[in-house]
Amino acid sequence: MNSDTNTIAAVATGEGGAISVLRISGPDALTICDRVFRNPKGKKLADAKGYTLLYGTLLDGENTIDEVLVSVFRAPHSYTGENMAEIGCHGSPYIRQAVLDLLTRHGVRPAGAGEFTLRAFLNGKLDLSQAEAVADLIAADNRGAHALAVHQMRGGYSEEFRKLRDQLLELLSLLELELDFGEEDVEFADRLKLAEIIERTTARIDALRKSFALGNVIKNGVPVTIAGAPNVGKSTLLNALLREDRAMVSDVAGTTRDVIEGVLNIRGIRFRFIDTAGIRKTEDRLEAMGIERTFQRIGSASVVLLLVESEMPDEAVSEQIRQLGIRPGQHLAVVLNKTDRTSPDFAKKRIEELKALTEVPVLAISARENRNLDRLTDYLFQTVGEQTGEKGDIVVSNARHVEALDRAGEALKRAREGLASGLSGDLLAEEVREAVHHLGLVTGEISTEDVLGSIFSRFCIGK
Amino acid sequence: MNSDTNTIAAVATGEGGAISVLRISGPDALTICDRVFRNPKGKKLADAKGYTLLYGTLLDGENTIDEVLVSVFRAPHSYTGENMAEIGCHGSPYIRQAVLDLLTRHGVRPAGAGEFTLRAFLNGKLDLSQAEAVADLIAADNRGAHALAVHQMRGGYSEEFRKLRDQLLELLSLLELELDFGEEDVEFADRLKLAEIIERTTARIDALRKSFALGNVIKNGVPVTIAGAPNVGKSTLLNALLREDRAMVSDVAGTTRDVIEGVLNIRGIRFRFIDTAGIRKTEDRLEAMGIERTFQRIGSASVVLLLVESEMPDEAVSEQIRQLGIRPGQHLAVVLNKTDRTSPDFAKKRIEELKALTEVPVLAISARENRNLDRLTDYLFQTVGEQTGEKGDIVVSNARHVEALDRAGEALKRAREGLASGLSGDLLAEEVREAVHHLGLVTGEISTEDVLGSIFSRFCIGK
Repeated sequence: MNSDTNTIAAVATGEGGAISVLRISGPDALTICDRVFRNPKGKKLADAKGYTLLYGTLLDGENTIDEVLVSVFRAPHSYTGENMAEIGCHGSPYIRQAVLDLLTRHGVRPAGAGEFTLRAFLNGKLDLSQAEAVADLIAADNRGAHALAVHQMRGGYSEEFRKLRDQLLELLSLLELELDFGEEDVEFADRLKLAEIIERTTARIDALRKSFALGNVIKNGVPVTIAGAPNVGKSTLLNALLREDRAMVSDVAGTTRDVIEGVLNIRGIRFRFIDTAGIRKTEDRLEAMGIERTFQRIGSASVVLLLVESEMPDEAVSEQIRQLGIRPGQHLAVVLNKTDRTSPDFAKKRIEELKALTEVPVLAISARENRNLDRLTDYLFQTVGEQTGEKGDIVVSNARHVEALDRAGEALKRAREGLASGLSGDLLAEEVREAVHHLGLVTGEISTEDVLGSIFSRFCIGK
Repeated sequence: MNSDTNTIAAVATGEGGAISVLRISGPDALTICDRVFRNPKGKKLADAKGYTLLYGTLLDGENTIDEVLVSVFRAPHSYTGENMAEIGCHGSPYIRQAVLDLLTRHGVRPAGAGEFTLRAFLNGKLDLSQAEAVADLIAADNRGAHALAVHQMRGGYSEEFRKLRDQLLELLSLLELELDFGEEDVEFADRLKLAEIIERTTARIDALRKSFALGNVIKNGVPVTIAGAPNVGKSTLLNALLREDRAMVSDVAGTTRDVIEGVLNIRGIRFRFIDTAGIRKTEDRLEAMGIERTFQRIGSASVVLLLVESEMPDEAVSEQIRQLGIRPGQHLAVVLNKTDRTSPDFAKKRIEELKALTEVPVLAISARENRNLDRLTDYLFQTVGEQTGEKGDIVVSNARHVEALDRAGEALKRAREGLASGLSGDLLAEEVREAVHHLGLVTGEISTEDVLGSIFSRFCIGK
């Protein structure tokens, strides 16, 4: 990882397109650009105000490289906090390279991956979790992931971590005050107040840790497993949802052996549907393998849709629900399929019976005739989607942050136990200091070259 | 082709990358953006000065789409000549689409291909040949094509066409003055002066028409055909030039049947090398087909390199030169290969003998040992490259322009003949008017919807 303060440059826009933008950042950004830039009125970039644009030509000696628009930003009012120029040129690979070569010959260094955002972090323009959010934002491909990244980038997320850390710092100051007078062997830090702060902080950390399951799901898609007996219409449902013939459908029970996936965006939230082999006892080795995989997929699903038919007796449905082994935190719905094949009255009766049988939601659809599929997608969105709104609670979606929360939680747990068992103030302070340390890693109040290197190397060049 | 004046928007940068730029142009560009843009200090884009930037957030109702930088341009001081905003946002496909959707819901229309440049043309910001140069510039992938496009974009090219047209308009005014007094049947337009103007204009038009061969070659690469007897080292030379094993090489005469190409940039000029089947009498049908193709390639080459060996007698070399049938405008060099296999003295003697034999340049190389290849590339660059410098003469590289020049030339030829045969003033004026018309098509002083449509539809969206 480079941490010099040379002036750096990189193409910041994708290949192709009508225009390209090159970013230049560093103390000499404007003066270096002035060496190759000529404005028709003779204006210099180094003399221009921040947040203004100058039109002109880029010259390599006598040769015109391009006509360009240059945006001028002056330290500290720029993305990186340094002097910056953004050159908007025509979007040809030849020109992009020619401009970069020209700038390099005049003293800039090509920027490494994430180097602009690294400088922004080092110059205090954003904290570490905000910098990570920038990368998440660029990678976001659905409304849920996008909303999480925007929220984190705008600092609401960091605020939460800072609050937590401040509470622990308050705790620490109480303990350290006591230690200053330690020789007198008096405990004047109120043990009850200490316990209360630890309790409150631990509860918040636990809530944040738990939110990771949701955060991860939003970022990577909500896994929805479609389960049920053979030939109950699982693949037909998948195809109906995706509106294409993704899964192989036939009347022969046991057609689906592979686990088939399809992605559907429901109001901006990405759901990954997993069609599975029908669950039944079988002698067919390949089918048995498929069924085994089905149970694996049920285990890792956020939502399981159990497809059943009207004719299926209550006991069989109960037995299947039992077999699924739904864990806490997972969502299950019973979906009565093939309503097109029964009389409306019979279907109605079965729905009532199934609702009496189980506490989970019961929906009636016809996958073959696309009937009531909107109710199914509504159910899915409500189950997961509503929790991902921008106004909702903080959601952790970054594995590094969860690890820091885990470590902080462990330290606090030891502190709590220590408090209960009358541990001395200096040892208590030690544990609290460790929790503070780990929370500080999230926003980068504490950071190491290693951590920074691993975070920013995942960025693209030009960011 | 759209020619309304609605406010239009498009993503102007390529996919991927750290940032994306969306362009919005039209009377309401700034006010529409203001509906979805919020600056932290409450500043409005519509109140901002041209050539300034505002930082802020793009909002879809309550939801933040992104943090953005918006460049403000006010009519007529913008690329299109209209009010314009350029939104720099994060470079994710999700955000690009979300911003475009947002703007569309607030009243912009997605721009068609080339629509920004079309508006620039319609608003007189650039002429038609300059607009075409913008597309050429984006497509340029070598120094030569880039230099041509820059020169044309900067207007030197248009100036040349305007001068020509002005000369003919002067001619026309002389003729029309005479026609005003036509009843008196007096010729007071000086026939000698008319003839002189027609002569001068025709000569210039011819020169421009001839430059197209060069212009085309610069844009698409200079075709260089490597010819010679079988097993004289043609494929070895191609591989040596390209520094890779592109052509299949063996000691068996007649190895190369296909016409093999490789591209080499020599100081920014792109040369397309064509290795060919060795020329000899053969019974092998496939080989004979290869030889036939060789002659086709020689015919369309700008430069032909005839490879010979020291042992080859003068008469054989002369016969081969004759066989090649080099036309005026084509360049030929005799290249003595395999100098590593003979004594330096013998090689020297053969070079002198060959130089006495022919007027074309003679070079000595060893393709196998990469000896003197730089002299060969120097020769190629000098043959074509030097004519493509920016300070050189106007070079026509656009087929549409050549067609216009052809038509103008034909009309002037008829005028000249008419002048010689005493054609009446009104018929002469008719021909001159036609020449003026065609020259006007190049810069777009005269244009039709059809012509504009076919030109701008070849642009990318966002340009």
